[in-house]
Amino acid sequence: MSHVRELLSKHGKPPREVYFDHENSGWVPPEVVEAMLPFFNIRGYGHPAITNLPGWEAYEVVETTRELVMKVISARQGDDVVFTHSGTEANNLAIMGTALANKKRGTKIVISSIEHPSVIYPAQELEELGFRVVMVPVDGEGFIDPEILNAMVDKETILVSTQMVNHEIGTIQELRELVKAAKDANPEVIFHTDAIDALGRIPIDVSKLGVDLLSLSSHKIHGPKGVGALYVREGVKLKPIIHGALSTQKLWPGVENVPALAGFRKAIELAFENFEANVAHMRQLRDKLLNGILERVDDVLVNGPIGDRRAPDNVNVSFLYIEGESLTVELSLRGVYVSSGSACTSRILEPSHVLLAIGRKHEEAHGSIMFRISRYHKEEDIDYALSQIPEAVERLRALSPIAPKRKAQ
Amino acid sequence: MSHVRELLSKHGKPPREVYFDHENSGWVPPEVVEAMLPFFNIRGYGHPAITNLPGWEAYEVVETTRELVMKVISARQGDDVVFTHSGTEANNLAIMGTALANKKRGTKIVISSIEHPSVIYPAQELEELGFRVVMVPVDGEGFIDPEILNAMVDKETILVSTQMVNHEIGTIQELRELVKAAKDANPEVIFHTDAIDALGRIPIDVSKLGVDLLSLSSHKIHGPKGVGALYVREGVKLKPIIHGALSTQKLWPGVENVPALAGFRKAIELAFENFEANVAHMRQLRDKLLNGILERVDDVLVNGPIGDRRAPDNVNVSFLYIEGESLTVELSLRGVYVSSGSACTSRILEPSHVLLAIGRKHEEAHGSIMFRISRYHKEEDIDYALSQIPEAVERLRALSPIAPKRKAQ
Repeated sequence: MSHVRELLSKHGKPPREVYFDHENSGWVPPEVVEAMLPFFNIRGYGHPAITNLPGWEAYEVVETTRELVMKVISARQGDDVVFTHSGTEANNLAIMGTALANKKRGTKIVISSIEHPSVIYPAQELEELGFRVVMVPVDGEGFIDPEILNAMVDKETILVSTQMVNHEIGTIQELRELVKAAKDANPEVIFHTDAIDALGRIPIDVSKLGVDLLSLSSHKIHGPKGVGALYVREGVKLKPIIHGALSTQKLWPGVENVPALAGFRKAIELAFENFEANVAHMRQLRDKLLNGILERVDDVLVNGPIGDRRAPDNVNVSFLYIEGESLTVELSLRGVYVSSGSACTSRILEPSHVLLAIGRKHEEAHGSIMFRISRYHKEEDIDYALSQIPEAVERLRALSPIAPKRKAQ
Repeated sequence: MSHVRELLSKHGKPPREVYFDHENSGWVPPEVVEAMLPFFNIRGYGHPAITNLPGWEAYEVVETTRELVMKVISARQGDDVVFTHSGTEANNLAIMGTALANKKRGTKIVISSIEHPSVIYPAQELEELGFRVVMVPVDGEGFIDPEILNAMVDKETILVSTQMVNHEIGTIQELRELVKAAKDANPEVIFHTDAIDALGRIPIDVSKLGVDLLSLSSHKIHGPKGVGALYVREGVKLKPIIHGALSTQKLWPGVENVPALAGFRKAIELAFENFEANVAHMRQLRDKLLNGILERVDDVLVNGPIGDRRAPDNVNVSFLYIEGESLTVELSLRGVYVSSGSACTSRILEPSHVLLAIGRKHEEAHGSIMFRISRYHKEEDIDYALSQIPEAVERLRALSPIAPKRKAQ
């Protein structure tokens, strides 16, 4: 990989830079950074559980952020929101914390086959402790059939976890139906949803959805890295999975990352200030990018649903005959920053389990590219991307031994 | 507590503010914040495992920070440093990760009675999985006797964990002797040290010490919150305790907090730029504060050792006949920000287990106050604190039913 590193670090400044990789790492706008700054050294730099002034100011940040999260997901008084340091940690707490606290009621866990690794891996880890994990299949667009879920949930099932919006292909599940299907089969079941890719994209109302646990992450909505959150319905029992000195909350120990929480608070405010307009803007640019690619490039597969059942910010396509990883590098040289479904785990080229689950072949999954639209993108960003993508794909296909030879025009 | 909150939030601006609570939450100097800023939105805002330019720039931050940590603790090539999101998480990974990966070799864990809760609680949690935790006692100054440790380590022991510097009373253990004592009893034992309160205060050399695992935390050296680190000697086996998508490291999943790592990197540079001078400065102010208190206030107990065997930044004293929690509030009103050994866990007034372990009575522990000196403190800060402490103590003692009546002069 070191030659790629050299290539990237030495490449000249492209005419424009467009960052689309919000799936993997968020870009933090200046107004969010601004909101964090006082809490490093002017006020609230203390420990939220200590009764000195900088501590109480810190406590205010933690509590107002918690209240804002509660408000935007329509949580009720008595419910709680636990802050962790990442969405991965929130998902781990949901899965392992629920299982460990409810083992006496049963040992079966039902998740979908396209969950994020931070749901799948902790669930599988629990198998070493005597739990059993069952995976619900999805259709070719990533949807779970409520009837199949209903049939898989039984009296032994303590936990069901299915995403609200898929992180790779943008499938918006009919979550309310899925919760109903699971609770019809077993009213005692605890329902967790990973809503990390739903926040700021579609409305979230925990009461209407009927979920018991719901995960969020700051960096997916232009907040800083370093904050995850887990909504916990009143009465739902969880066991902590990390242990230490408690600050303001019982389920995650250690001092809260107060500046990051202040940034998350600001990012939520911005995402919900003009929610409908932001979503409409993202949806328009999404379709412009997707349709633009399909018009300009042959042999492209769209991964996931299209239209209203797809997240407004998600474009995921497979460019046949080439490697997504190579295209990621090629597009980076042109200032278009994306990621590939062939590279989600630590530079090991494994095809995305999500794409395989919806029926993509290995070679189709390897050629996949994820673009995530942000409310900060402009029409010109999409135009620029569309001006670069066909050339980049053509260049790599010309080098590919498996690409069919094109007829000269 | 709400009246305290109101009192604190409404109190006027004191003539000077001196923050001493670096034990619980660090204050981040402007040059460290400055070092973080580009990585929010100018460069390196990508995911360190993704092969686009912002991703590779992020990777550089992670790797150069790791290299710098390795350098300042004299790690060897082949050793590793794992970044977590807090010191608490680093300690949890060390204790639970080692136990889970080495269960076949034995089930006994030996820790000291004055370890941080993020070592004690995960160790105790492991008892549910069949492990056995044994606690080494300490003397009246917090020191562990190597002979006692040697006698407690046996063939069943897989892990020993003792701090380098105690977080409350500043005891600097003879760590090299302790490692030798433990490995003499069982050469296979894995030795972890929580060095979170040692970094920047005393030299750390993992090779000379002979430790296998060593925890650090950014916010204890004026770095931002959101970064912990665990040094792992080559060949030491750990199991991850949080599971998900891997980025650049195998033992802690999820995207690394790159801006916070850039801040940690800068904080390390600053702490080690003039290490000897910084330490001498802290030690001088420490003694000025401690001696100043003893000269001005009667009935004060010093908690922990004095002189070179105490951390250069640590002052911990018990003011008899009053509650440390009340004194924390009273001093806050005067702009002197401290914490108390009676309030380390989530506003629940429990006496510090460290103070009880060195033989303090409950009422002595309740009256304890921690001050942590920073290299940013000035003589005038100490003078100001010394001008406020006697009055504050006197005021509370006048209200205390158990304080002896003073003779009129």
